[in-house]
Amino acid sequence: MKIVNFQSNNGVRMGVVDGDSVVDVNAADNKLPSEYGAFLRAGGDVKALADVVKKAPASARVPLAGIKYALPVTSPGKVICLGLNYLDHVKEGPQKDNIPKFQSIFFRMMSSFTAPGAPLIRPKTSIQFDYEGELVVIIGKRAKHLTLENAADCVAGYTCGMEGSIREYQRHTTQWGMGKNFDETGSYGPWVVTADELPRGGKGLKIESRLNGNVMQSSNTDHFMFPVAESLVYLTEGMTLEPGDVLFTGTPSGVGHARKPEPVWMKAGDTIECEIGGIGVLKNTIADEK
Amino acid sequence: MKIVNFQSNNGVRMGVVDGDSVVDVNAADNKLPSEYGAFLRAGGDVKALADVVKKAPASARVPLAGIKYALPVTSPGKVICLGLNYLDHVKEGPQKDNIPKFQSIFFRMMSSFTAPGAPLIRPKTSIQFDYEGELVVIIGKRAKHLTLENAADCVAGYTCGMEGSIREYQRHTTQWGMGKNFDETGSYGPWVVTADELPRGGKGLKIESRLNGNVMQSSNTDHFMFPVAESLVYLTEGMTLEPGDVLFTGTPSGVGHARKPEPVWMKAGDTIECEIGGIGVLKNTIADEK
Repeated sequence: MKIVNFQSNNGVRMGVVDGDSVVDVNAADNKLPSEYGAFLRAGGDVKALADVVKKAPASARVPLAGIKYALPVTSPGKVICLGLNYLDHVKEGPQKDNIPKFQSIFFRMMSSFTAPGAPLIRPKTSIQFDYEGELVVIIGKRAKHLTLENAADCVAGYTCGMEGSIREYQRHTTQWGMGKNFDETGSYGPWVVTADELPRGGKGLKIESRLNGNVMQSSNTDHFMFPVAESLVYLTEGMTLEPGDVLFTGTPSGVGHARKPEPVWMKAGDTIECEIGGIGVLKNTIADEK
Repeated sequence: MKIVNFQSNNGVRMGVVDGDSVVDVNAADNKLPSEYGAFLRAGGDVKALADVVKKAPASARVPLAGIKYALPVTSPGKVICLGLNYLDHVKEGPQKDNIPKFQSIFFRMMSSFTAPGAPLIRPKTSIQFDYEGELVVIIGKRAKHLTLENAADCVAGYTCGMEGSIREYQRHTTQWGMGKNFDETGSYGPWVVTADELPRGGKGLKIESRLNGNVMQSSNTDHFMFPVAESLVYLTEGMTLEPGDVLFTGTPSGVGHARKPEPVWMKAGDTIECEIGGIGVLKNTIADEK
């Protein structure tokens, strides 16, 4: 199932993509929450959701074409990011001689994101605005001290992510937090494909980023140094994951700062896409900060 | 004014300390929000609050002694942390030969905090549980592109912070995010002293951490490498600060991992305090993860 949050006159609504329409699930059955994060926190019963979609009246359907997406999960408790999870990306970066033995963990605040389809904002303070296409995991169940065997059970689904980064600020110190948290520099979406429709742990998915239609990153999630299950085990050695938490899984090689002979930075008018096999395409334009 | 969030039979309530009692401000005037973060997001009018406290009936007062604190601001949009902000702390750490030119920025999730007075949790997975006493800034106004002159205007007040860290995990990679986000390893509070009652930018405040009554860290916020105003200017070059956002300002020397001849780690039964001049004492015990 493909689950979206979309913007309507009544605020953000949760929908399920059904052919060329989207079923507003709360309009179809007002016992269901009207936002995907709330749905997950209320138990996230996908089978009940499928039943509601099947029986949804025409009045609860809106055309998929022209829908205005919102971030799937509008208020996650945490947005966790893994860095340096593809070896070829490690080797194109400043840490190339120091292959990490553990997942690099950092966080993004919600102020750093904007909706799928909306412009990502290049700040006034730096031109070094880089793209990072990533597989994104949406957590569906509370989890602590997971094992490799059960880790993937806590995953509700997968989506595409754009982890836009201001490289200049990212390199000011050893900590990446500043460069990863400029206002409206990232996104995730446009929809969440439920875990039952993809390989366990999101394995074997083709991932590609395109800038103005040109392929800039092309890899496969089989190249993760730390597969999803391993990362979930590691994270839950310390922190409880909650329904609606969001996990960015790292980006492959081909980012703008490492390109030769000159780095490539995103600028106003550009279009950046992240496409993941079995999921779809997250597409954003770039605009300058006002 | 000293503003608290406290736990009651009706959930978290916002109060103002008035002598040996706490005025439940929403009980005194139901036009006021019942949680401090919500109060700040609604404009944070401290003068109106003072009027309500002055006229509060006995029925809206509870004794300060025995109050059960909640985190002041229960759901901040961001908890931003500065690392390496006291030179003597830089020099006791692994980065001692590399004095930072910028503020090191990382983030903590709300799952990493517990209330003032509640036990901080030593995890099952590591014994390296260290203390970091810090001045904490509470943001009162939306702010972007601040200047050194106006930066402190966005501060609602100041409180004490305990930025408990799992050093082993903090050092797994270059990124500190994991070691700084173990469940319930930090706190802030117990109350927020409004900015009008302290030096602008929180300057010149004595800061001390005590483990089981022994002074472990003792410094003064005048020793910040990056004073509060400078840090706010830097942060707002990239991100919008919002009312209720929380900023930890870094810790002085004397942390457990750097102590000789052996490091000192917190363990079940210990008591850790952070005292800041003009604010008060944040006190937590330590318990083992269940």
